[in-house]
Amino acid sequence: MDAAVFYGEGDIRVEDRPEPEIESPTDAVVRVTHTAVCGSDLWPYRGYQDREAGTGIGHEPMGIVEAVGDDVTSVEPGDRVFGPFSTSCGECEFCRKGLHTSCVEGGGWTGPNSGAQAEYVHTEHADGTLIRVPDRHADDEETLRSLLPLTDVMCTGHHAAVSAGVEAGDTAVVIGDGAVGLCGVAAAKRLGAERVIAMGHHEDRLEIAEELGATDTIAARGEEAVERAKELTHGGANHVMECVGAQSSMETAFEVARPGGTVGYVGVPSGVENAEFIGTAFGKNVSLEGGVAPVRAYAEELMADVLQGTLDPSPVFTKEVDLRDIDEGYRAMDERDAVKVLVKP
Amino acid sequence: MDAAVFYGEGDIRVEDRPEPEIESPTDAVVRVTHTAVCGSDLWPYRGYQDREAGTGIGHEPMGIVEAVGDDVTSVEPGDRVFGPFSTSCGECEFCRKGLHTSCVEGGGWTGPNSGAQAEYVHTEHADGTLIRVPDRHADDEETLRSLLPLTDVMCTGHHAAVSAGVEAGDTAVVIGDGAVGLCGVAAAKRLGAERVIAMGHHEDRLEIAEELGATDTIAARGEEAVERAKELTHGGANHVMECVGAQSSMETAFEVARPGGTVGYVGVPSGVENAEFIGTAFGKNVSLEGGVAPVRAYAEELMADVLQGTLDPSPVFTKEVDLRDIDEGYRAMDERDAVKVLVKP
Repeated sequence: MDAAVFYGEGDIRVEDRPEPEIESPTDAVVRVTHTAVCGSDLWPYRGYQDREAGTGIGHEPMGIVEAVGDDVTSVEPGDRVFGPFSTSCGECEFCRKGLHTSCVEGGGWTGPNSGAQAEYVHTEHADGTLIRVPDRHADDEETLRSLLPLTDVMCTGHHAAVSAGVEAGDTAVVIGDGAVGLCGVAAAKRLGAERVIAMGHHEDRLEIAEELGATDTIAARGEEAVERAKELTHGGANHVMECVGAQSSMETAFEVARPGGTVGYVGVPSGVENAEFIGTAFGKNVSLEGGVAPVRAYAEELMADVLQGTLDPSPVFTKEVDLRDIDEGYRAMDERDAVKVLVKP
Repeated sequence: MDAAVFYGEGDIRVEDRPEPEIESPTDAVVRVTHTAVCGSDLWPYRGYQDREAGTGIGHEPMGIVEAVGDDVTSVEPGDRVFGPFSTSCGECEFCRKGLHTSCVEGGGWTGPNSGAQAEYVHTEHADGTLIRVPDRHADDEETLRSLLPLTDVMCTGHHAAVSAGVEAGDTAVVIGDGAVGLCGVAAAKRLGAERVIAMGHHEDRLEIAEELGATDTIAARGEEAVERAKELTHGGANHVMECVGAQSSMETAFEVARPGGTVGYVGVPSGVENAEFIGTAFGKNVSLEGGVAPVRAYAEELMADVLQGTLDPSPVFTKEVDLRDIDEGYRAMDERDAVKVLVKP
């Protein structure tokens, strides 16, 4: 089968790899029909993260179940499914608590052989991991494009909103205009925020933010952005959603937060080194909530919204490529020509 | 009047300073009968914090109201009162929210002239700041010694417990065996924690922790302390109280926290520079809650407990000095001969 393989900085190739097989009774194999390139796939691509050359990549699979192990009860061959970026058993303390990313049996999609950017993927713990799309929606291409972001970015944006404590009538500031920030805007709006202030650096992306529910946008950096947000919120927001994970965005989040407020953060803090913002947080009693998003805990609830037509994060896909041309998808995201790229094997 | 004055590293002197006077209609002047030396007073004393030579010091006043301005209604001359380490108006958004440390009119006790380590102190906003001790308890020396920690460390320890989400039946890990950590132990016990694990470096202080309600103690550092705490909590605690504010204690707090748990932090993070622990927090979805303690919000509730005999943080005072000998109090705390020093003008 065709599979995207990482070879080094700026070097993604499509190679022939062996199709995955059922190895244990709780496994499933899925024929991938839709997948995507994630901002976090860019870390190794940009050389920011070590990754072994020759390994598979991608973690946002949607497709048709090809085969299941003997113990799998929730899906069967022919079902349309999608999977969160991490796998989970569904039965441990943390899965029961809705914290599937801390599953004691959890893992990912990317192995030495292939990842979710491939014609087929393999998962352990199919029952605890895969989400089945109801049959009546299973072949509607438009619906599937709207569901695909639930594998990662939409649930991650939702986690930012939930972590920041966004509720009906609230004012939320969303920091970051990448796919997660844009989904965060949609999530805050969905939870009833009356005012959603999107902060970013790209006018075209802030237009998508408005399409997804932003009532105000701030296209500025640093102190200027902070001052503008404070003006709009009469001194600071009680709910700040940090959707980047950079040093500057974390600092901005705490500057923008109102005393007693909450920063919900979901951007992997790989670039966060200086802890000075903790002093800002301390003086104002601003909480830091969130972390890696437990996608599995949110996916069914958000799917219900997509299927009833009240949530559509598909505008984050500003480009589509065939799996064989995935290097062009990586290039477009790396150069910010695309917000997020949909990939079809 | 006599007042403690800071002159530089290791140099605290008692000097004659002018008595404070009523300057505005919301002011009060209090004749100090009891005060204390705080861990944070040691920062300038140790040279860790810049402070102008010749300025007053101290922020934990208890005494008898000497005079009040025309608009003050809640206290009158002759009343026994104590004051939080920060002053507050009692009327702004943040005071109404119980976040008195973010009061828009808030200030402190220490001025260029004198601080709370003096024979008299002056406060703006007496109604929003001072807590009146009921007359029937106002002259009982034992009660007053038990109430004095409510000016700062007891309410700060309580803020750690509240921020960490400690409730009845919970297991809490308290990091730090200074006065705040010890008060944190008492606070966690008071909130109904079934198991309170106190972590520190001094056997004698951990004995006080046991006296105040610790069910387990860990006298170890670094990895050894983390491993021991994880053993005692079957993999990590849902409620961790960080009562130090150092780099290592913050790191330990996140290591000890269970996935999905909460770190309540109240130690001023002056020594926290490296943000690597945010990565630990992110991966486990551990929240960081707390900050500078809004003492005024908690003082009356905790005073009720002291007066009914169900809370007694006075064991943190392991030494007492006259104001004129306050330099000996600073020395004892600096050299860890004393946990906390009570000072009598």
